[in-house]
Amino acid sequence: MKIIVEKEGQNMTRELSALQKARLGYKPKLPKVLRNGIKNLNLEYGVPTQAIADADDVQELFPNSYGKPMATFTSKHDAVPNKTTNVGVILSGGQAPGGHNVIAGLFDALKEANPDNKLFGFLCGPAGIIDGEYIEITGNLMDEYRNTGGFDIIGSGRTKLESEEQFMKTWNTCQNLNISAVVVVGGDDSNTNAALLAEFFLEKKAGIQVIGVPKTIDGDLKNDQIEISFGFDTATKTYAELIGNIERDANSAKKYWHFIKLMGRSASHVALECALQTHPNITLISEEVAQNKTSLSEIVDYMTNIVAERANRGKNFGVAVIPEGIIEFIPEMKSMISNLNDKLALCEDEADYMALSTKEEKREYLKNKLEAHNAEVFASLPESIQAQLLMDRDPHGNVQVSRIETEKLLVEMVQAKLTEMKKNGQYKGKFSSQTHFFGYEGRCAAPSNFDADYCYSLGYNAFALILFDVTGYLSSVKNLTKPADEWIAGGVPLTMLMNMEKRHGLMKPVIQKALVDINGPVFGELQKNREIWAYEDHYLFTGPIQYYGPSEVADAPTKTIQLERE
Amino acid sequence: MKIIVEKEGQNMTRELSALQKARLGYKPKLPKVLRNGIKNLNLEYGVPTQAIADADDVQELFPNSYGKPMATFTSKHDAVPNKTTNVGVILSGGQAPGGHNVIAGLFDALKEANPDNKLFGFLCGPAGIIDGEYIEITGNLMDEYRNTGGFDIIGSGRTKLESEEQFMKTWNTCQNLNISAVVVVGGDDSNTNAALLAEFFLEKKAGIQVIGVPKTIDGDLKNDQIEISFGFDTATKTYAELIGNIERDANSAKKYWHFIKLMGRSASHVALECALQTHPNITLISEEVAQNKTSLSEIVDYMTNIVAERANRGKNFGVAVIPEGIIEFIPEMKSMISNLNDKLALCEDEADYMALSTKEEKREYLKNKLEAHNAEVFASLPESIQAQLLMDRDPHGNVQVSRIETEKLLVEMVQAKLTEMKKNGQYKGKFSSQTHFFGYEGRCAAPSNFDADYCYSLGYNAFALILFDVTGYLSSVKNLTKPADEWIAGGVPLTMLMNMEKRHGLMKPVIQKALVDINGPVFGELQKNREIWAYEDHYLFTGPIQYYGPSEVADAPTKTIQLERE
Repeated sequence: MKIIVEKEGQNMTRELSALQKARLGYKPKLPKVLRNGIKNLNLEYGVPTQAIADADDVQELFPNSYGKPMATFTSKHDAVPNKTTNVGVILSGGQAPGGHNVIAGLFDALKEANPDNKLFGFLCGPAGIIDGEYIEITGNLMDEYRNTGGFDIIGSGRTKLESEEQFMKTWNTCQNLNISAVVVVGGDDSNTNAALLAEFFLEKKAGIQVIGVPKTIDGDLKNDQIEISFGFDTATKTYAELIGNIERDANSAKKYWHFIKLMGRSASHVALECALQTHPNITLISEEVAQNKTSLSEIVDYMTNIVAERANRGKNFGVAVIPEGIIEFIPEMKSMISNLNDKLALCEDEADYMALSTKEEKREYLKNKLEAHNAEVFASLPESIQAQLLMDRDPHGNVQVSRIETEKLLVEMVQAKLTEMKKNGQYKGKFSSQTHFFGYEGRCAAPSNFDADYCYSLGYNAFALILFDVTGYLSSVKNLTKPADEWIAGGVPLTMLMNMEKRHGLMKPVIQKALVDINGPVFGELQKNREIWAYEDHYLFTGPIQYYGPSEVADAPTKTIQLERE
Repeated sequence: MKIIVEKEGQNMTRELSALQKARLGYKPKLPKVLRNGIKNLNLEYGVPTQAIADADDVQELFPNSYGKPMATFTSKHDAVPNKTTNVGVILSGGQAPGGHNVIAGLFDALKEANPDNKLFGFLCGPAGIIDGEYIEITGNLMDEYRNTGGFDIIGSGRTKLESEEQFMKTWNTCQNLNISAVVVVGGDDSNTNAALLAEFFLEKKAGIQVIGVPKTIDGDLKNDQIEISFGFDTATKTYAELIGNIERDANSAKKYWHFIKLMGRSASHVALECALQTHPNITLISEEVAQNKTSLSEIVDYMTNIVAERANRGKNFGVAVIPEGIIEFIPEMKSMISNLNDKLALCEDEADYMALSTKEEKREYLKNKLEAHNAEVFASLPESIQAQLLMDRDPHGNVQVSRIETEKLLVEMVQAKLTEMKKNGQYKGKFSSQTHFFGYEGRCAAPSNFDADYCYSLGYNAFALILFDVTGYLSSVKNLTKPADEWIAGGVPLTMLMNMEKRHGLMKPVIQKALVDINGPVFGELQKNREIWAYEDHYLFTGPIQYYGPSEVADAPTKTIQLERE
């Protein structure tokens, strides 16, 4: 319990910025149906649901929790059961703006239902509930974190809560604290595990509910019922602020190409949203690359042609937006990295390789290690990137894809191609570059009004679902492009989001990631404008997130949700 | 004139963000004395001024413009002369938020004085006035740029306007456009050249005035009379937003050390201000390093000790803020880089060096090229940094210091030191790192209310100075920690800011850069808290710049100016 003391002591004496102080007083908006008090609700059920795919397999694995109906809150003036309900909450995985407000909504609903209810926060992610490390979230502590960014109230972690042994320990922790419901705030993996935990508790007749909350700045945890995961709004607006500022700089100095990599390994929603907010000259989308089986050299050609054509028009500057994960979507890179993971051991090989001085020797060496086509791909990369592929391995010897500086890789390859074109007289411009990677800059930003309201509602709604005794549900608040008044609150059965996928060679039930739909309206909007944005300068400057001021400035949701839902 | 057409056409059809639209309507605040109309002013003169140092030498070089008195505007209801006055404006050097508002203030005052007055904007910096490339700034064009970031209305450039030939061409351009005053918006170098141009026009009896406006995000163009250069407020607040977000992330994930490099080569005001706004665990200040003659290994020791002590306390995370220019302030690095610039030619040497495989061979090779102590320093650096020093040369073969990834250099050296300590049992923690460089993210941000008001006032005031026939003055608006109502407007003779410094082997009159005063109150504030911030987590989250909302959120000036002036 040392942590509580240190935390409270720290915060009480801690200096706050003017904006922090002002935001602590912000009252997040709830859906109308949740505003009459936690005790004046009715939960209406729809028809039973099906898994998104592989229904039989998923059902077999979730015999107790499969196929539950959709659930929607309506107002009611009968009293709901007033039992004492202690709840545990876990923040799982990467931070997303608004996590503290999920806890605030949950806390307020829980205390409103019964002041004797307790909320326990497990420390540093799922490991906290497994090992029984927690703090009780008190009113004073909660008040210091309302509308703030970060997950620092209890910390987060990436331990996977998935084994029988971990479930048993979790059960034990819950029994010790008299916890009857666990709220898991996480992305697709964490919510998959929340579904497994719910099934486990049902099977054991433990009487412990599990409710998930859709979190991830990546925006890839969504479906018809979950319009967006929280944090996406704030993170993309923060990156868009920076991209817009850089565009303005590029267009003022007129001498640099800025290659900007944005966080998001599995899906390109962040890059796509930011592109729609800022209109860069080049936007790469991983899902498009995968669909078209675009090769690295085709990507480089695409970029180089835009650089060269802009130079023809007297513009030796521009901005390119690149999703972090793109390298894994390029077929030959994916194959080469996989081959490298399998075949090339750490350390000795690397030293041997780096000692070779000519390109021919290096290529020859790799031919003996990698399959021929993979060796060719490897040899075609700039040396600095080869070194990253060889050196930055994780403890299992795998290439750490997130450490590969894709933005620099592309700069070097575009530069090389331009040099070649210059020799042939096809290019007469100048190419100077700056590279950027934005991710950590936005994951813990203070939530926008949208995320502050949405997260508070998700948390409040999670407790309402607990009161109605459901389990294995994801807290759902929808109709988000409308004012909060018109938002619809309810629950979505987690098994409904699942299908079977191969993981480490075995078929596993998992929540399907929502990738960018290249036939959908959001990508369509990029596609429609891409050519124009490439050559003319339609840069858009969204500026920093505003918490005050005209509603269209302070409250507008993302382009993605507007295009998908309107 | 093609540029005008393209620019207007583009902007008229251009989509604007909600914030852009809202900000176009913002009315910047003027000092009270300037609010009665451009024709109701009186300029009061003080006593003659002296150069900051080397007065005799400066006076000899500026026989016509030296020693002018300070000048302050007061209200008056007599009409001032109503001559037609065409003005030319130049944006010089790196962008700073608020440049467009300087032009807006200048434009509004000029048109208010006489609607027939014309404002010409020279394109892409000083080169525009030398080569006669310009646009006329019209009301419609101006209205599209009010309160926006960037210098894109006319572009900026780094051509130095300093030779007799350039002055003659400039004179010619002014005669062609019937321009009777030139406003130079720039940093210390550009304003030094503005002073030379003013002297030239006086000597030639050209009848053309020159007024400077103090611009630089670096914050190093200031003195008793110039409280701060414009742009510093917005840029530091933008970087502080990002640093605060990263601190929150560090404190939530609890697994990374973030090493953040901030723009600012000559002075560390940006790093210092950002540190006071965000309270990072480590802050390096170049001026302190120079003063104490701190060696690179001492800096690494300082950082490593904090990392290790935090690890002892269970905190394997933190945030370090590093000024971009620090490497040039470390005595042995400065010496080594200078030696490298002098002695090591491009290309061939580099290839020879990189081909050597053992450290001993490399050290031996360098001993024959560099002086022994410099060779030692070079050999002590990580290989990736050695490669940057050897490869990234400018066209004169000089090391491009701004391209050196100092943040990565320090990460690698801290890592190496920790590995050593681990072997000796002195360190048991984990060190994972992320590096960042912020500069381009803030130079073109939309100006804060402070910069929007200050810049508009500087521009309006510049025209008022022109009306009163002064030349060789810097537009001055002071008392900036008070509300705009109480701001004092006037002019500061440029020669007052000058001293003699050696440039390319010759003594030249230059405006003295205002470095961080390590005996002053701003550095004192860091010093007082540094030890506490290192080990406890007093992270402060300023959030994004707010244009609306409570005044303490939306209008507060920087810590630097508050500490210096209050």
